[in-house]
Amino acid sequence: MLFFTQCFGAVLDLIHLRFQHYKAKRVFSAAGQLVCVVNPTHSLKYAPTLCAAVQTSAEQGILPPCHHHEAVHDPQLVSCMCPLFSCPWEGHLEVVVSHLRQTHHINILQGAEIVFLATDMHLPAPTDWIIMHSCLGHQFLLVLRKQEKYEGHPQFFATMMLIGTPTQADNFTYRLELNRNQRRLKWEATPRSVLECVDSVISDGDCLVLNTSLAQLFSDNGSLAIGIAITTSKVHNSEAEM
Amino acid sequence: MLFFTQCFGAVLDLIHLRFQHYKAKRVFSAAGQLVCVVNPTHSLKYAPTLCAAVQTSAEQGILPPCHHHEAVHDPQLVSCMCPLFSCPWEGHLEVVVSHLRQTHHINILQGAEIVFLATDMHLPAPTDWIIMHSCLGHQFLLVLRKQEKYEGHPQFFATMMLIGTPTQADNFTYRLELNRNQRRLKWEATPRSVLECVDSVISDGDCLVLNTSLAQLFSDNGSLAIGIAITTSKVHNSEAEM
Repeated sequence: MLFFTQCFGAVLDLIHLRFQHYKAKRVFSAAGQLVCVVNPTHSLKYAPTLCAAVQTSAEQGILPPCHHHEAVHDPQLVSCMCPLFSCPWEGHLEVVVSHLRQTHHINILQGAEIVFLATDMHLPAPTDWIIMHSCLGHQFLLVLRKQEKYEGHPQFFATMMLIGTPTQADNFTYRLELNRNQRRLKWEATPRSVLECVDSVISDGDCLVLNTSLAQLFSDNGSLAIGIAITTSKVHNSEAEM
Repeated sequence: MLFFTQCFGAVLDLIHLRFQHYKAKRVFSAAGQLVCVVNPTHSLKYAPTLCAAVQTSAEQGILPPCHHHEAVHDPQLVSCMCPLFSCPWEGHLEVVVSHLRQTHHINILQGAEIVFLATDMHLPAPTDWIIMHSCLGHQFLLVLRKQEKYEGHPQFFATMMLIGTPTQADNFTYRLELNRNQRRLKWEATPRSVLECVDSVISDGDCLVLNTSLAQLFSDNGSLAIGIAITTSKVHNSEAEM
């Protein structure tokens, strides 16, 4: 285990070394692991909508935000893109990825195991760090959010969501791992579907939760490295069930 | 991993089954693992001292509580028993275990891997759950504390301390693991020495921290099972250094 800790330390050192040479949103590989440097986005939930809205459904405006909506005729209709801003966009699950890439400029990474390196952890809440992760034939959304549940006491919440249905999400397990300063914290759970709401996952506290002091212990120079791994937890049978 | 999850589930089922038949502080074995049922103690930090005080040092009353005191002539003198109540007892490290057993009736368990089953998680803060764990030739103290850092928002803090010096503590790694409802949370760190103060470990947040909702997700019928494992992280050389 000491060997593993040292290996992880070496990876972080490499990350840190390479980090000096880049300035913007970056993706590179260190010791065989894909590392994505993710810059923060100040949360715009309650600000005017920023994205180029594409109105595709007559129901838009009737459904409350973050409502888990499954239309009878099409169970894959995404009625609101909850994890991101207050975007009025609506569409089918198949086009969510292209919407996120094109409108919100969210990076997408390939690989079973990646390192998510969130920068500028000191920025005031509310702030989000978001990437997409393509793995095992599916796309996942990783959201790290800094939020003040109790005024004056910001906390960090990290969760992974499948860009797919809840039934498909049940087939996977995701793992988030922090490792630094002789401490290791691991969270494993079944991802939620983006048809559910990231806000409710975070307000329920059903995710990796870090207080500021723990976040500082795991951070290096204001950046937090989160190791991400996704595995299948069941035989793929979601298509058969649908 | 699914196999492991199911195994752990089976252990918890066994615990739960056997739990029906016992009422007080109990120790039993389930699937080869030692399980200790730990009843809560309402924190008496600010109440009059309860323990039969044994005054062994003239410095008693001069040293502030939780001060990391190492007398020049004897680096193993424990000036206050911080993890427990406001006990004015003082003594050497060698007699801490017998003091905790005899005066505070803290259980001591043998074994490399044990399950700590804390009951009555619903009780109001401040509440402590404490056991001693004998392993690899040393004794450790596990403290689970329910405390309100932010008024009206109790949290759970779990940490392990070595009944030994900080130099000895550096040789070990402890792991606390929660596993239930398809979620797993693991914390690994180097134990602190009881010569340091559990209060400061908790106020620094340098331990396993659970908010109420996560504690509920991991609890079964008001009891929280924490898997504990201790390993050596270095060659035992603390005796040579002393």
